[in-house]
Amino acid sequence: MSKTIFFNAQHSPIGAFASFTLGERGAKGGFGHEIGKPADQNVYIGLESATEEGTFDMLPFYGAPDGVLANYTPEEISKQSKVTRNFPDEAIEREYHACIDTWRAGDLSFRITSPVKKIPDPETAEESSLKDTLLPVVFVDMTVNNSESDKPRRVVFGYGSTDSQKDFALHYMKHNHKNMDQLNGIGCGRNFAIVSCNGPNDPVHARVGFEIETLVTLPEDPTTSLGGCAAMVATIPPNEEKHIRFAICFHRDGMATSGMDARYLYNRWWKDVREVAHYAVENHDRLVMEWQMPDNNLLIVPQLSDDQRFQLVHAVHSYYGSTQLLELDNGKPFWIVNEGEYRMINTLDLVVDHAFFELTMNPWTVKNNLDAYADTHSYYDEVSSPADPTKLLPGGVTFTHDMGVANHISPPQYSAYERPFLTDCFSYMSCEELTNWILTACMYIQVSKDADFVSRRLGLIKECLQSLVNRDHPDPAQRTGVMKLNSSRTKGGAEITTYDSLDTSLGQATENVYIAGKCWASYLALEKVLRDANATAEADLAATQADLCARTMVSAVDKDSSLIPAIINTSTPHPARIIPAIEALVYPLFTGRKDALAKDGKFAEYLQVLTAHYQAILTPGICLFEDGGWKLSSTSDNSWLSKIYLCQFVARNILHQDIDPKADAAHVAWLTAPQNTYWAWSDQIIAGVALGSKYYPRGVTSILWCTEDGNL
Amino acid sequence: MSKTIFFNAQHSPIGAFASFTLGERGAKGGFGHEIGKPADQNVYIGLESATEEGTFDMLPFYGAPDGVLANYTPEEISKQSKVTRNFPDEAIEREYHACIDTWRAGDLSFRITSPVKKIPDPETAEESSLKDTLLPVVFVDMTVNNSESDKPRRVVFGYGSTDSQKDFALHYMKHNHKNMDQLNGIGCGRNFAIVSCNGPNDPVHARVGFEIETLVTLPEDPTTSLGGCAAMVATIPPNEEKHIRFAICFHRDGMATSGMDARYLYNRWWKDVREVAHYAVENHDRLVMEWQMPDNNLLIVPQLSDDQRFQLVHAVHSYYGSTQLLELDNGKPFWIVNEGEYRMINTLDLVVDHAFFELTMNPWTVKNNLDAYADTHSYYDEVSSPADPTKLLPGGVTFTHDMGVANHISPPQYSAYERPFLTDCFSYMSCEELTNWILTACMYIQVSKDADFVSRRLGLIKECLQSLVNRDHPDPAQRTGVMKLNSSRTKGGAEITTYDSLDTSLGQATENVYIAGKCWASYLALEKVLRDANATAEADLAATQADLCARTMVSAVDKDSSLIPAIINTSTPHPARIIPAIEALVYPLFTGRKDALAKDGKFAEYLQVLTAHYQAILTPGICLFEDGGWKLSSTSDNSWLSKIYLCQFVARNILHQDIDPKADAAHVAWLTAPQNTYWAWSDQIIAGVALGSKYYPRGVTSILWCTEDGNL
Repeated sequence: MSKTIFFNAQHSPIGAFASFTLGERGAKGGFGHEIGKPADQNVYIGLESATEEGTFDMLPFYGAPDGVLANYTPEEISKQSKVTRNFPDEAIEREYHACIDTWRAGDLSFRITSPVKKIPDPETAEESSLKDTLLPVVFVDMTVNNSESDKPRRVVFGYGSTDSQKDFALHYMKHNHKNMDQLNGIGCGRNFAIVSCNGPNDPVHARVGFEIETLVTLPEDPTTSLGGCAAMVATIPPNEEKHIRFAICFHRDGMATSGMDARYLYNRWWKDVREVAHYAVENHDRLVMEWQMPDNNLLIVPQLSDDQRFQLVHAVHSYYGSTQLLELDNGKPFWIVNEGEYRMINTLDLVVDHAFFELTMNPWTVKNNLDAYADTHSYYDEVSSPADPTKLLPGGVTFTHDMGVANHISPPQYSAYERPFLTDCFSYMSCEELTNWILTACMYIQVSKDADFVSRRLGLIKECLQSLVNRDHPDPAQRTGVMKLNSSRTKGGAEITTYDSLDTSLGQATENVYIAGKCWASYLALEKVLRDANATAEADLAATQADLCARTMVSAVDKDSSLIPAIINTSTPHPARIIPAIEALVYPLFTGRKDALAKDGKFAEYLQVLTAHYQAILTPGICLFEDGGWKLSSTSDNSWLSKIYLCQFVARNILHQDIDPKADAAHVAWLTAPQNTYWAWSDQIIAGVALGSKYYPRGVTSILWCTEDGNL
Repeated sequence: MSKTIFFNAQHSPIGAFASFTLGERGAKGGFGHEIGKPADQNVYIGLESATEEGTFDMLPFYGAPDGVLANYTPEEISKQSKVTRNFPDEAIEREYHACIDTWRAGDLSFRITSPVKKIPDPETAEESSLKDTLLPVVFVDMTVNNSESDKPRRVVFGYGSTDSQKDFALHYMKHNHKNMDQLNGIGCGRNFAIVSCNGPNDPVHARVGFEIETLVTLPEDPTTSLGGCAAMVATIPPNEEKHIRFAICFHRDGMATSGMDARYLYNRWWKDVREVAHYAVENHDRLVMEWQMPDNNLLIVPQLSDDQRFQLVHAVHSYYGSTQLLELDNGKPFWIVNEGEYRMINTLDLVVDHAFFELTMNPWTVKNNLDAYADTHSYYDEVSSPADPTKLLPGGVTFTHDMGVANHISPPQYSAYERPFLTDCFSYMSCEELTNWILTACMYIQVSKDADFVSRRLGLIKECLQSLVNRDHPDPAQRTGVMKLNSSRTKGGAEITTYDSLDTSLGQATENVYIAGKCWASYLALEKVLRDANATAEADLAATQADLCARTMVSAVDKDSSLIPAIINTSTPHPARIIPAIEALVYPLFTGRKDALAKDGKFAEYLQVLTAHYQAILTPGICLFEDGGWKLSSTSDNSWLSKIYLCQFVARNILHQDIDPKADAAHVAWLTAPQNTYWAWSDQIIAGVALGSKYYPRGVTSILWCTEDGNL
């Protein structure tokens, strides 16, 4: 596989909503904090030439003017040209893993280490293990091999802000007015610092100024700081190999959110970025070693192909970049995964997809999300038929699409996203979010065996069942097991699904086979939980609904083509064919309902129908792009990698289908195409171009691949 | 005078480092917080047409896409065109005062009220008067005259963020999770809100969404918030005139600074923007009335021409936009004026110019600055001659150029700005800053009669004298009264002056006649303070130095031209002629040394020389531009309005010269030229273009004009 090495990757502490993003050429990476995109800063990584003194060979991660220059008349700043030049592309190598990303060029190596660790439950864990996991830091190790040279050579790691207003007040960490301590590094405001972790006789000099060319060649360290460029510069003695350590530190103090007040949980131990930096300096070597051995052995799985491994690793990097662990006024943790470029908070249709990852890593975060939705972001509605929207029927409890956006917690019972009067993007997802809470809760119960959660939430779980049944129909005689009624919240509009920017084939919720599959899986999961809780009547109702649903789906098969239309019960057969018809088959596996997946079991016919459907549509011109990549809907060019990963798992593990490796190669080619590499991992790829859901966490559905020869 | 009405003006609370900037066409104004430029937001102000229902006539302060749109595939958002159009230019009027800025168009009027009030000393004042002055709010009053129309008409005030990352999480103020109170408005994160102040039966509806066209025409209020556009919409009944009130609220909680921790002082009373909003709602009418009558009657001065009044008003608006009142850990206030676009903190060469304004308004802020510099940002150096920079001589105490930049307080004894090894921009200003502290302190003492300050700082004042004398020469035999030696901080470079981006004529400090004038005034001021304190020997030394200085200046006159060269004692006469040779004549007036300005007094000859110099250079081709505007130096096109204002005062009041009103007209034309109007008030105008010191506070030197027929 030959793909470019110049793609952005997010390197993030866990739960700090921060990222050192690097890999795209130009001023396209940098140190982003609470944003949904790269920081677009210059990152300066370079080594003085062995033969040309005063000339630095650089990695190509810069190129825009450092923004502060715009604040001064340019002719006042003497630009020293010819100080920097780029390493030739062919001299640069990259080794990209889950926890380590290493760049090598000439005698220089630059390695970023970020944590992929299980997070101990903050309500019960030892403080020390929490601190070592949640430290809002990523580490950098540079090695310069100057053993072949008899001249000293300077090495630099720095950055430049390209915005004159943000990230401007660069300064030294050495001393502040309260505390003249000995941090060696540079900082920006209260939120960011890069500090040297090299102990006594530190060869590193911290410098702030207007441009990198001046900073690397200064005769001595400046005492003052003005300018949007900062660099750590060291001189490597002749005939030595030297290892230099840095910590990249993020911090936000005070309240971080509006709507509901919460602060970053790490404020328990570190009240500002200087305290973070001290801990990082003291623990650099130990933590780098610990973090380089990921807790999650699943990430080192021999059966994965290189293409699969790349996508999993890339997705995990972007996932952590969106994580944000807060603490409420009452001291309780508040776990958030932000929605990539959109920054919506804990979007529930992502929570259910992330659950495969989190139930492996940190089941307590899943409980945290479930409880948060139950406590503040659930609501009650009525429902009505698209044919007669004014006639309201009993609905029930359901959950909002999200809990807010960009650090604003939306009011109780409301998402940031959902609006009335619509029939497509930004309409309500009342039924899908109900299935998402049910499925996430049932998976959590199955994995955690958390009896306390079941007992606390049993009433709600029963309400969820009734609500889901009512969205089929409150009148038992009219039930088909499939969602047919829209929420009154839509005010005459129509509910949509998570596939909001796809066409109707995956956009319309009522009688959609994707939603029908999730209803089926929800009923099965509910049956199990309710039967285990001796709620026999409710369990029986759930079982009945699952049967009904499967029967409806089977009978919806188009007799001519053996295919299931995307939308059933339409007057003329809906033309679209969708891969996510099979998506929900994943849930029985994780909700204790493997019985439902048995070839000769109760749902054998449903499985046969889905298998035949899958086999028939996975052909070029229907649900395969020309490059072999998967096309979720035959009628849309908008394909979503996170869902492809999930459906690939279903196809292989439940439907027992082989998948052409060309598909994985095509998906890697999408992610590494020049138009997409800026955005690290992206979800919505429209005919090869990442046009939505960029810089996105959802790709961790690929964690499922790691379980293919085993069990979760 | 016909000048454009479409220029940005800053409307700012006092001490909140915030501005509602409005007036430039397009998305060039908005709500800026802690930035050195306009926020570049869309501001939507409009009224539905009386004849065309659904069409809104708008003021032209928008035009860029609201940024969040970039986060979604544009085709998903249905842009309703033809909803908005601009009022024709000729239909728009503006009335611009110090506290009130009113726009009128058709049946709509839009008025912004901001405070120009004396700030009671936070260490001693009544809480209530402090709150009414420091409330981080500006008020808006809209009036719609619908009395001639028999149709209801909708009116809108809203804004749109043009950045997808900043100012994104727009939301309703109505309720949050803790407090379901009844604020009616929209907010952004924890820092900003616009709330309606219309009491019960409020006709205003708060709306958040993707674009203004949808928000004004929605059939009912949305319940959810996502999008970068927010608007307050009201329907005006037929045949009525209606007055609608708003408060624009800023807030930052927690620590605002790094280097030294400080928070906004208003946190004493309002812990978040909701609390600010509540106070604003409860007190809108009373505060609008109070604020519309400025404390400072000097701003309503009959003798000012329209051109003068415009410049004064414009300067005051920009001044308040840079003010920032913080509180230290120990509860002491920390008064900051940020340096406009550069955001350097309390730049000392601005402090001395602002002192004319602050000694009128808030003498305690001057003391606050003086003490802060004395306590943390003074230092001791040695000095040396440009001819022999390595031979170090005794120097003394002096003060840094600034106390940091962009909310970062620089380390003790260091500015953000000054660097070693330089001979021009960014070099040290050790001598000039020493005179600036001396002059500011002596003016403060003269105005305040603050015996406590004198007794606390007498030792330092004596040290200042010795330091200033040493910068002439430590050896009495070599003294000329003029600064001749550079600080050792320059490390072999050369000191500069506040005119850092001008040419050598005002840039080189040693033997510069501008600096010489400030030394002369400093010696005179010191003599007074020291003699009053019975420090007779020191007073005598100061007097001797003042005499020496004046004599040196007089003897420096070029016999052929009767002009003083910008730099004296050069081997060939320096060709430049500078207006600021007369600048320092202002200080005797405010330091109790009017005696020195007497026509027949001790310095009669010095005054005659300066008068002749002034008269000779104020001619086209030397120190007048073609348009009649003042050119500070004959050899540079870079002219600084703040200093022109000051020198105009000196020319009229001390040298008793008439000034051609063409000069004021030219300066107004500079500020209102299309290339400059974006930046509100700017200082450095290079041949008609504002190229530096934009969005700047320093123009309040024009307050001096108000004293011309009286005394300060």
